[in-house]
Amino acid sequence: MPDDTADDIVTAAFLVIGDEILSGRTKDQNIGFVSGYLTAVGIDLKEVRVVPDEQPEIVEAVNALRMKYRYVFTSGGIGPTHDDITADSIAAAFGVPIDVDPRARAILETHYPPGQLTPARLRMARIPQGADLILNPVSKAPGFRIENVHVMAGVPAIMQAMMDSIGPTLTTGKKMLSRSVDAQVPESRLADQIREIQDSYPQTLIGSYPRVYDGRFTTQIVIRARDEDILLKATAAVETAIRNVTG
Amino acid sequence: MPDDTADDIVTAAFLVIGDEILSGRTKDQNIGFVSGYLTAVGIDLKEVRVVPDEQPEIVEAVNALRMKYRYVFTSGGIGPTHDDITADSIAAAFGVPIDVDPRARAILETHYPPGQLTPARLRMARIPQGADLILNPVSKAPGFRIENVHVMAGVPAIMQAMMDSIGPTLTTGKKMLSRSVDAQVPESRLADQIREIQDSYPQTLIGSYPRVYDGRFTTQIVIRARDEDILLKATAAVETAIRNVTG
Repeated sequence: MPDDTADDIVTAAFLVIGDEILSGRTKDQNIGFVSGYLTAVGIDLKEVRVVPDEQPEIVEAVNALRMKYRYVFTSGGIGPTHDDITADSIAAAFGVPIDVDPRARAILETHYPPGQLTPARLRMARIPQGADLILNPVSKAPGFRIENVHVMAGVPAIMQAMMDSIGPTLTTGKKMLSRSVDAQVPESRLADQIREIQDSYPQTLIGSYPRVYDGRFTTQIVIRARDEDILLKATAAVETAIRNVTG
Repeated sequence: MPDDTADDIVTAAFLVIGDEILSGRTKDQNIGFVSGYLTAVGIDLKEVRVVPDEQPEIVEAVNALRMKYRYVFTSGGIGPTHDDITADSIAAAFGVPIDVDPRARAILETHYPPGQLTPARLRMARIPQGADLILNPVSKAPGFRIENVHVMAGVPAIMQAMMDSIGPTLTTGKKMLSRSVDAQVPESRLADQIREIQDSYPQTLIGSYPRVYDGRFTTQIVIRARDEDILLKATAAVETAIRNVTG
């Protein structure tokens, strides 16, 4: 059951599936993309998980997240090799059968020369029963959507193309707008004033982010709100507070 | 209860706390560092979660992860501002009181000039009862360890310094070794052979990672094992398989 019953808030979780991220071999690039993409369209990313290529872990995470958020997006594990177990794990999570899907098979048949749709490649056409395909303009092998779970490739270029193809199908909420203000002082010098502004503008979310560069401590204050008028008022209050502190 | 009862496997989870990662404002740099660090010392990172600056979410994640893995590492939310709620959330997760800790206060007193240890800065000395401090050579305000949970700053330079200071205290397992082999063909052409090698060497974890660059599809095969002899044999088998396919 998603926790976003208010019309103007749509929540999501992102599940990264892959040993290579957990071992440090591959630096993840998908979390940054998905977080920015969802914020831009008006969907609140509320949680990210990274799990290994192990069916019980994938099943547990998918089932926890799909009950809690409106949308779940996954990346990784839908290729042709033995370690690509995402599709089977998603079928297990939903308790539905999985087999070669005729629509997915047709896409792969047009992609590979005659006789080259090997059993390994045909594995990429295994889709859980009841799922819709997500088109893959880069390398053809599709992702899929089952209920509120969108299953995408792990290769960033392919994942991003899939996200573009599902973007228009998503229900979006009122966008979270943001402004940021830099201050040339450590955040501890602004803390009391920023807390007061947060209390005065409860419809905003104000974050204070310290930076360390070359031994100097500075701060970026980020103000977020769905209402632009409130956002601008709170931002002005932050700017005044910073001026008062920095003299 | 950690799932790593075998002596040679030590498991861990990493919990990133912060709205700024979920909104896309800040690209996470800590997951890549922690995953590489733990692999290098012989600790298996099994799960990562990113949660917002909301106490119920932090409590739920910490309690789930600390029961499941030997170690939990967290980053973010231990500064002086209103949005820094990690220490209080960890205390709530463990059901222990939290107050200004005399050891942490003493560290801050030596750091700030007389009279400048303001109430906001003193917030950084709030430590859950029963915790040990984690020293912070960069900006002094300490992190802490309570039972198997290590609480660190979110700023990458500070987080990395804290990790260096706790590294020697950690129990480590037998290191997971790895070799990688590049192949100039799409992974679907290697899939059958790699699956057979995986089946022949069950003590290894073999991953197949497709790459798309300029419309060309290539593959990196990564072989991992704790035993070097097995690792080298499986790697040789992968190299032979690639030669057979690429001719």
